[in-house]
Amino acid sequence: MKVKEAYYRTIWIKPGDQKTIQIIDQRSLPHEFIIEDLKTVEQVAIAIKDMHVRGAGLIGAAAGYGMYLATLEASSSNSFDKHINAAAARLNATRPTAVNLTWAVNRQLTAIQQGSDHQEKIEIANRTAIAIADEDAAHCKNIGNFGLEIVEEIQRKKNGEPINILTHCNAGWLAFVDYGTATAPIYAAFDKGIDIHVWVDETRPRNQGARLTAWELAAHGIPHTVIADNVGGHLMQHGQVDLVITGSDRTTYTGDVANKIGTYLKALAAQDNNVPFYVALPSSSFDWKIRDGCADIPIELRDENEVKYIQGLSDGALKNVLLTPLESPAANYAFDVTPARLITGLITERGVCQANENSILQLFPEYKKV
Amino acid sequence: MKVKEAYYRTIWIKPGDQKTIQIIDQRSLPHEFIIEDLKTVEQVAIAIKDMHVRGAGLIGAAAGYGMYLATLEASSSNSFDKHINAAAARLNATRPTAVNLTWAVNRQLTAIQQGSDHQEKIEIANRTAIAIADEDAAHCKNIGNFGLEIVEEIQRKKNGEPINILTHCNAGWLAFVDYGTATAPIYAAFDKGIDIHVWVDETRPRNQGARLTAWELAAHGIPHTVIADNVGGHLMQHGQVDLVITGSDRTTYTGDVANKIGTYLKALAAQDNNVPFYVALPSSSFDWKIRDGCADIPIELRDENEVKYIQGLSDGALKNVLLTPLESPAANYAFDVTPARLITGLITERGVCQANENSILQLFPEYKKV
Repeated sequence: MKVKEAYYRTIWIKPGDQKTIQIIDQRSLPHEFIIEDLKTVEQVAIAIKDMHVRGAGLIGAAAGYGMYLATLEASSSNSFDKHINAAAARLNATRPTAVNLTWAVNRQLTAIQQGSDHQEKIEIANRTAIAIADEDAAHCKNIGNFGLEIVEEIQRKKNGEPINILTHCNAGWLAFVDYGTATAPIYAAFDKGIDIHVWVDETRPRNQGARLTAWELAAHGIPHTVIADNVGGHLMQHGQVDLVITGSDRTTYTGDVANKIGTYLKALAAQDNNVPFYVALPSSSFDWKIRDGCADIPIELRDENEVKYIQGLSDGALKNVLLTPLESPAANYAFDVTPARLITGLITERGVCQANENSILQLFPEYKKV
Repeated sequence: MKVKEAYYRTIWIKPGDQKTIQIIDQRSLPHEFIIEDLKTVEQVAIAIKDMHVRGAGLIGAAAGYGMYLATLEASSSNSFDKHINAAAARLNATRPTAVNLTWAVNRQLTAIQQGSDHQEKIEIANRTAIAIADEDAAHCKNIGNFGLEIVEEIQRKKNGEPINILTHCNAGWLAFVDYGTATAPIYAAFDKGIDIHVWVDETRPRNQGARLTAWELAAHGIPHTVIADNVGGHLMQHGQVDLVITGSDRTTYTGDVANKIGTYLKALAAQDNNVPFYVALPSSSFDWKIRDGCADIPIELRDENEVKYIQGLSDGALKNVLLTPLESPAANYAFDVTPARLITGLITERGVCQANENSILQLFPEYKKV
């Protein structure tokens, strides 16, 4: 997507330097736009764990490029396979909830095995990393087109009045390689001239909505308003939300959705007010093994200081400020699970389905258990 | 309640100076404890509007003391009555949602009328202001005793395991004159030796939970954990909340509750997970005229900068930091309405009732329409 008239993805191989990956360091957004070089698996692992990059698709793409860097490192190590497996374990350990992480690492492990020598393994890992990123972008573009049909259906009912879409967290292009998932229908609708306005949940504690989604939408010129996470229910009660679209960090094949903490509360409010609640995800975010998302998807518990402190701009510099009494503990659950029963539909790269096993497997029959 | 072993209320007449009201300036909590002098109606109005003082009961008490200051000012003005009425209008205009404000102002207007001369009017206003504050404290103490019975009932079911209570915003003693409403049962239970732990919603955008409730509870030694507002649903899904208690800024006689924005979302989650959801309020927070809270309670829309910026402590100084892109607008709805159907019960100074007209009027029969 565009940043100041230049076209960017969120991750790429540095032009002229095949051994360096570049990312947008999202920790400084929206106040600073910083490109970071990653040259080692460890740097990629830190970038994922400390959220220089974040979001389901981008975590997967970063892990893919990380495994490519692992093949470069492995070829100058004592044991190629040992290094590759250690790199896979290191990357897999960075974030527990996003299923794209292990999906991308496993895809790379399988691909790398096909190479007959180190050089070929490096080339395969390079191609696979690029393929993971390209597929992610293509999937998001498809999600945009399928989601656009939902927006157009609402547009017909509203007779030209502006359409208000609420989103939680950042499932925007910054969370993927390009386009995003929850934002893809928004970009598609806006680019088609549909009159839309986006309610942006700020998404405490890390404020990915206020920092990243707002920044993305502003950069694209899309009308939007930042709101505290507490506000969505009130807006829905008063008819000010026509559609909710969120992303997903992991969706069970039964339709339960793990997504940024607080998503469940918005789904409850949507149900209580008959507002359609859609989740947009590429199929790489499906977990084909877990039946009961609420019971069995592991929920990451992050550092309490992400709740107690917040970063913002003061006098032109980024500052961390303390929000609570210093002695008060905080708990920082990063995700929650929205039960399938609260979800109107899933928007995938193959089309829209209902959030249940039958409907999901009709779109993805290759995952049917025989 | 206690602050560093000294006993405080939230508002009082300055010892030795009958013409000065003193308050705790809550804007600096939890980082600094500042006592502010208020000598004019205008200073009281600013203190309410800019939230040096806030919370249903304390707004009422401040308005009561403000009207007392108004009688002092009026006695040296050209027209006593004109000044009194202007002061009433000024105070009533400060915050639109809290019903205690107009309740206290009207009580003072009626009382002041009884005085035969300026001096007597001043004395009446002084006594009435003190009575409003004393009654608020007495009501909160009663609420604590009635709420304690609910906690003890849960204690019997949990066989000595710790009881987890979630609260939203600050309906603590800082929001009233003493004890608080939502916190009154918590203080009563803790003081009786019951093993409790409080989940403190930080309560964006103004973070009254993270700043004030956490500070109160820490000062009293009550185990608590600050959480982002997004977290409560997840905790309830996983059996980590036994009871929700919130306050109320205005409750219709039919049981609809206007309270801090986001309360409605927690009530939805409580219902979805069979967690008892209680609202604690003194009868001064009832609106005996409005039937449909969601349609008819006015909801204050505050300055967008309360969402875009946040105050915290950095290097020993209070700093305001920008959280969003500078150009992104924000919307700052301060309250929402929780429909009566989501509320397990109301804890009042006269006992616990259901959130419906019949049950409320059984406790408060003097408001029955004849």
